[in-house]
Amino acid sequence: MRRTLYTADHEAYRETVREFVAREVVPHHERWDAERWIDRSVFAAAAKQGIYGLQIPEIYGGAGEQDYRYRMIVCEEIAKIHALSFGLTISLQDDLVLHYLLDLTTDEQKQRWLPGMAAGELIGALAMTEPGAGSDLQGIRTTARKDGADWILNGQKTFISSGIMADLVIVAARTDPDAGSKGFSLFVVERDMPGFVRGRKLDKVGLPGQDTAELFFEDLRVPAANLLGTEGRGLHHLMSHLPRERLGVSAKAIATCRAIFEDTRRYCFERRAFGQAIGDFQHVRFELAEMATEIDIAQSYVDDSALAFNAGELTPVDAAKGKWYISELQKRLVDRCLQLHGGYGYMTEYPVARAYLDTRIETIYGGTTAIMKEIIGRDLAR
Amino acid sequence: MRRTLYTADHEAYRETVREFVAREVVPHHERWDAERWIDRSVFAAAAKQGIYGLQIPEIYGGAGEQDYRYRMIVCEEIAKIHALSFGLTISLQDDLVLHYLLDLTTDEQKQRWLPGMAAGELIGALAMTEPGAGSDLQGIRTTARKDGADWILNGQKTFISSGIMADLVIVAARTDPDAGSKGFSLFVVERDMPGFVRGRKLDKVGLPGQDTAELFFEDLRVPAANLLGTEGRGLHHLMSHLPRERLGVSAKAIATCRAIFEDTRRYCFERRAFGQAIGDFQHVRFELAEMATEIDIAQSYVDDSALAFNAGELTPVDAAKGKWYISELQKRLVDRCLQLHGGYGYMTEYPVARAYLDTRIETIYGGTTAIMKEIIGRDLAR
Amino acid sequence: MRRTLYTADHEAYRETVREFVAREVVPHHERWDAERWIDRSVFAAAAKQGIYGLQIPEIYGGAGEQDYRYRMIVCEEIAKIHALSFGLTISLQDDLVLHYLLDLTTDEQKQRWLPGMAAGELIGALAMTEPGAGSDLQGIRTTARKDGADWILNGQKTFISSGIMADLVIVAARTDPDAGSKGFSLFVVERDMPGFVRGRKLDKVGLPGQDTAELFFEDLRVPAANLLGTEGRGLHHLMSHLPRERLGVSAKAIATCRAIFEDTRRYCFERRAFGQAIGDFQHVRFELAEMATEIDIAQSYVDDSALAFNAGELTPVDAAKGKWYISELQKRLVDRCLQLHGGYGYMTEYPVARAYLDTRIETIYGGTTAIMKEIIGRDLAR
Amino acid sequence: MRRTLYTADHEAYRETVREFVAREVVPHHERWDAERWIDRSVFAAAAKQGIYGLQIPEIYGGAGEQDYRYRMIVCEEIAKIHALSFGLTISLQDDLVLHYLLDLTTDEQKQRWLPGMAAGELIGALAMTEPGAGSDLQGIRTTARKDGADWILNGQKTFISSGIMADLVIVAARTDPDAGSKGFSLFVVERDMPGFVRGRKLDKVGLPGQDTAELFFEDLRVPAANLLGTEGRGLHHLMSHLPRERLGVSAKAIATCRAIFEDTRRYCFERRAFGQAIGDFQHVRFELAEMATEIDIAQSYVDDSALAFNAGELTPVDAAKGKWYISELQKRLVDRCLQLHGGYGYMTEYPVARAYLDTRIETIYGGTTAIMKEIIGRDLAR
Repeated sequence: MRRTLYTADHEAYRETVREFVAREVVPHHERWDAERWIDRSVFAAAAKQGIYGLQIPEIYGGAGEQDYRYRMIVCEEIAKIHALSFGLTISLQDDLVLHYLLDLTTDEQKQRWLPGMAAGELIGALAMTEPGAGSDLQGIRTTARKDGADWILNGQKTFISSGIMADLVIVAARTDPDAGSKGFSLFVVERDMPGFVRGRKLDKVGLPGQDTAELFFEDLRVPAANLLGTEGRGLHHLMSHLPRERLGVSAKAIATCRAIFEDTRRYCFERRAFGQAIGDFQHVRFELAEMATEIDIAQSYVDDSALAFNAGELTPVDAAKGKWYISELQKRLVDRCLQLHGGYGYMTEYPVARAYLDTRIETIYGGTTAIMKEIIGRDLAR
Repeated sequence: MRRTLYTADHEAYRETVREFVAREVVPHHERWDAERWIDRSVFAAAAKQGIYGLQIPEIYGGAGEQDYRYRMIVCEEIAKIHALSFGLTISLQDDLVLHYLLDLTTDEQKQRWLPGMAAGELIGALAMTEPGAGSDLQGIRTTARKDGADWILNGQKTFISSGIMADLVIVAARTDPDAGSKGFSLFVVERDMPGFVRGRKLDKVGLPGQDTAELFFEDLRVPAANLLGTEGRGLHHLMSHLPRERLGVSAKAIATCRAIFEDTRRYCFERRAFGQAIGDFQHVRFELAEMATEIDIAQSYVDDSALAFNAGELTPVDAAKGKWYISELQKRLVDRCLQLHGGYGYMTEYPVARAYLDTRIETIYGGTTAIMKEIIGRDLAR
Repeated sequence: MRRTLYTADHEAYRETVREFVAREVVPHHERWDAERWIDRSVFAAAAKQGIYGLQIPEIYGGAGEQDYRYRMIVCEEIAKIHALSFGLTISLQDDLVLHYLLDLTTDEQKQRWLPGMAAGELIGALAMTEPGAGSDLQGIRTTARKDGADWILNGQKTFISSGIMADLVIVAARTDPDAGSKGFSLFVVERDMPGFVRGRKLDKVGLPGQDTAELFFEDLRVPAANLLGTEGRGLHHLMSHLPRERLGVSAKAIATCRAIFEDTRRYCFERRAFGQAIGDFQHVRFELAEMATEIDIAQSYVDDSALAFNAGELTPVDAAKGKWYISELQKRLVDRCLQLHGGYGYMTEYPVARAYLDTRIETIYGGTTAIMKEIIGRDLAR
Repeated sequence: MRRTLYTADHEAYRETVREFVAREVVPHHERWDAERWIDRSVFAAAAKQGIYGLQIPEIYGGAGEQDYRYRMIVCEEIAKIHALSFGLTISLQDDLVLHYLLDLTTDEQKQRWLPGMAAGELIGALAMTEPGAGSDLQGIRTTARKDGADWILNGQKTFISSGIMADLVIVAARTDPDAGSKGFSLFVVERDMPGFVRGRKLDKVGLPGQDTAELFFEDLRVPAANLLGTEGRGLHHLMSHLPRERLGVSAKAIATCRAIFEDTRRYCFERRAFGQAIGDFQHVRFELAEMATEIDIAQSYVDDSALAFNAGELTPVDAAKGKWYISELQKRLVDRCLQLHGGYGYMTEYPVARAYLDTRIETIYGGTTAIMKEIIGRDLAR
């Protein structure tokens, strides 16, 4: 289906992105995966080029551009080169961390952190999940207790994306054990604060370049100036950023679907067996036809979601619909594409094999499929 | 997801349609199904109200309105009252027959037929399928041989929607046995032509009000003035009308999904078991959440398709994607909704049970799911 | 896969059954469906031939044969001729009603009822479901209060198979409102008892020959001699008969799958399109291959279940696994077979179309798929 | 469902296997995966213990035991400890290579090779697949041309399991370019033959301990004494060993399903969220119930297949049904189990994550799902 989402400005931006990834990412990203570490310099280069941090106001060094379609173009071009570890790391900043720092910060905090973000020199992380509390935020046990003007943090987080690389970590902690859902607050923990201990870099099924870590806070003293948003409103702040986070997953997911599908389509018309291109077997033709259809149909929804988000009208429920559906589509589709590659699909030298590994977290992070269905289902009981 | 498809004009039209169906259809359509016949008078009433035939130029009594969104509103309002036999009959005119008569006719033909169509007094049908030729149009065996200025038709058609009711039947016949795909032409057979024999009204799984019939042509003499379009271009004419036919199926299908879903959602929060509304069981909540998601995602695609169609840019392939996907969605979704009704879902007094029966043809007519995948898959081999 | 279930004795019995259905059922069952009533005489004929009631002790006129494999043969032969309304009615006796009358009856009751059952002259029904209580048996509101030695029944049942035809109806009623799950008892209500009122014969999606009805009990006086089993143990009695009921559904379901599949396989190699048998298209070949596989795999489980049942070792949970899985398979498979028939699949003159209608209740009655999963899932929490 | 497959002898053997894997495999297999190499000594230990090579006649040092159920027990016990790389390597010998050496060898060949196999000192491999010929055996381009009494092999193989470790490689080569399907023969290439070049050990999605390699034959001289079976009958020999190979995949697959399911079931009742075990959520309960059902149903088929195989009656088609269905089940089930683990499922320290990686080849090797469906579907055209 023709897409009507983009204007000439967006397409011009796409050229910039394409040129950037060809120059700065394509030559390196397989090494990043092998070394399990992305060169930090690429983020500064990306920021300089406007590949991320676009939304930061000009006064702090960004472009002040709120149009979500620019983000989608970045997702699409990174997906095309199969650099998913890099893509996720960028996404983490632009769809998640940055918006906490834009929306919840005081002027003083903005001045401290935004220029570094805009320059790609500061990398952020968001630390919600704990060993005993995933989607169940009220199970968070990390505590912050007041000590004079400061706060003393104790606790443990896990599955923290960019946990090793991050310079700033937004930490959700319980500040009032008696206040129920109103007893949580957010803090920005900085790289060198005493008591901030990074644990293991976790071994994952995929996304090897992208680091995921355990973090520990041991009597970590956080100054009052690092409280983010309003004390006691931590869960509320987390909730209010969900639509963008979910949209971010959908945007990456549909872009990955399209890239892997196009790869596979090409493979099917090059690879021959029994005297013909395998794409000429009816079974393969139907597989491709089904996937092409599913992608186009989901794309319409993502594009509509982007416009709704731009208009301030994307609800958490509608974002949840996209999140679970399109991440599940990605999982299903990459699996089918791998199968069409036969034995080659199991060899990690093929992009489809690496995409298979990288993909499996999509239906889990940012709220599992089950959590999304809970959210949607409860809304239907209205 | 919010829809942005409709303007205030469309919503005003929706009021008209809603008022019409409440007055003219709701009190009768169960009887039509029981009697296996829709009162002909309702079509005249509908035409007068602008419920169908809107696209006919004003000069012939229509409104000259080409915007497909008006058709979608009709589909939505008819779906809401579960009058699927009526809806299909209307659809057959507006998405299919009428466009042959608008696009392929001479001025003289327009004057003969369009005013009757615009008045809802003439009902048309399209006769392509034969016992030995469904999707395989080149298998058509009905012949038309020249006899002076006239044509003599012989052959048999089956599965012809409105075959019993139709006043005008567009018949595809082979006019040149040696010309391969260029040897077919279209003819308009009229009600009282000698040799036009109606066969059985077929017993179907569902859609009892809507008639489906066998037709026979026995040395039927068709005057040259009833040749439709260009001699030898019959298959081409059929092909060129496919996008609209397929979009028509998608439009009806998504509207039916939404109507049956809403019905079921309501049922799940009214019906109680084990001391609570069944909608409060997590299993049911997830079922509803999944369906709500699938509907919204497909709706985006249908809405985009409508706009593409309005812009003259809906390709046969993109229309095929919608046709198979959304008709399959309808089948799957109505089945799930029936299941949520438990034993009541098997009782035809419940709309979901009747929708189950009516729905099963969707993935078959207008090109089966397999045929759609063939079309899409071949296009991918580019 | 070769089956090793049957011995020569079973195959000899199969010949008897085959001969019987060819003679007594094939010429009539379409009429029974059209008339929505099965001739009662066929049950007497069937009983005489040992087609049902085999398990009744010889002393009461049966064969005293407990081997479940004979029942499976009956299911298979009836499925082959697509007489599902007849098959269900037989099943209802042999897999359900009869075992209450064999297991829970006093000698006096056996003498009153078993000879009539063995002769095919008495037809039984089981009345559990109420408008407000389907799977939720504790929601039963029909009451039986003691009045001298008798009981006075009041209440309403719905979805009662053979409710119109039945001479004996086993009714579950609450006998002690304060005893929770131990407050229910079973009673045999007989045809002519005053206060036994038959309600509507319900219009169903399928199974037209098989009657399903509403029943009302209005101050119906049941003598103590018609209490079935132990007072207060009604729910327990119901539970203890579930394995056989569920196995009965599985046995019918797999037999129906195989019959419809074989029908469809044949169709696919007879029907031609685009110059070849449609079974020669890879898509169709794969559809058939998938279904053939699914049938064989499920068959192994059903055959194992039958042997486990014969050995007294089929647990309610294992029977529940078969019930939901194989009834869902039947639904899915008949739907796919219908699709392979194209337009013909929607015409009720084709067995696949009628099977589609008859099949839809399978995943609902005898405990819905959701209820089966609850039962299995709870067992896993051990 | 109770299984009736095993006797007391089998269960006694299970104890031996269990003891062996606890002692010799459990302490090492994660290291084997990390080092991408299994200690060769374990195979000798396993052979000594009768864990594999059981079928080799006693005269050559085996037990002469043909009962396939012993193989199934090995599969089950290895699956329970999640040592899939080890299990596949064993399987490759016992379900594949060994049977070529038992069935096609001369006495002289038996004496040369079987004692070493029986001692676990010789490891074999089967080299069919080539870069341009996977399932399409007639596409094999490796050639063997006669040179005196010897043969000169040239060509290339890929995806060869144990290709690096193997001492004996059975190679399929074209010996007569003009003889079509009758122009292929099998040869045993030995470790040190000049011209036998091992290529890359391939990087795979999973099964890291198990080696998969490219092999090259460069003017490799094979003596006539290493021709396996009959010249020109190579494809026939390959075909005749397919039932056992396919059954081997099914046996491993169902054992893996059960092991991962049991792991996951336990996890779901230990892991808590929102104040309860996650297994107490209805959604999770249904997931577990569905998987428990699917496993039991497939198990019946595998058990029946084993008995049919023992009786010499397992057809290639029935083995193909099991192969595709149960490998697809494994893929689907491991994926669902991973999802139930939430974020932990993506961490390779969890068995379910490693099983996810190891599993993905199942639907591909030994004939892809599509190839299996072709085979089954063609058989239905009878």
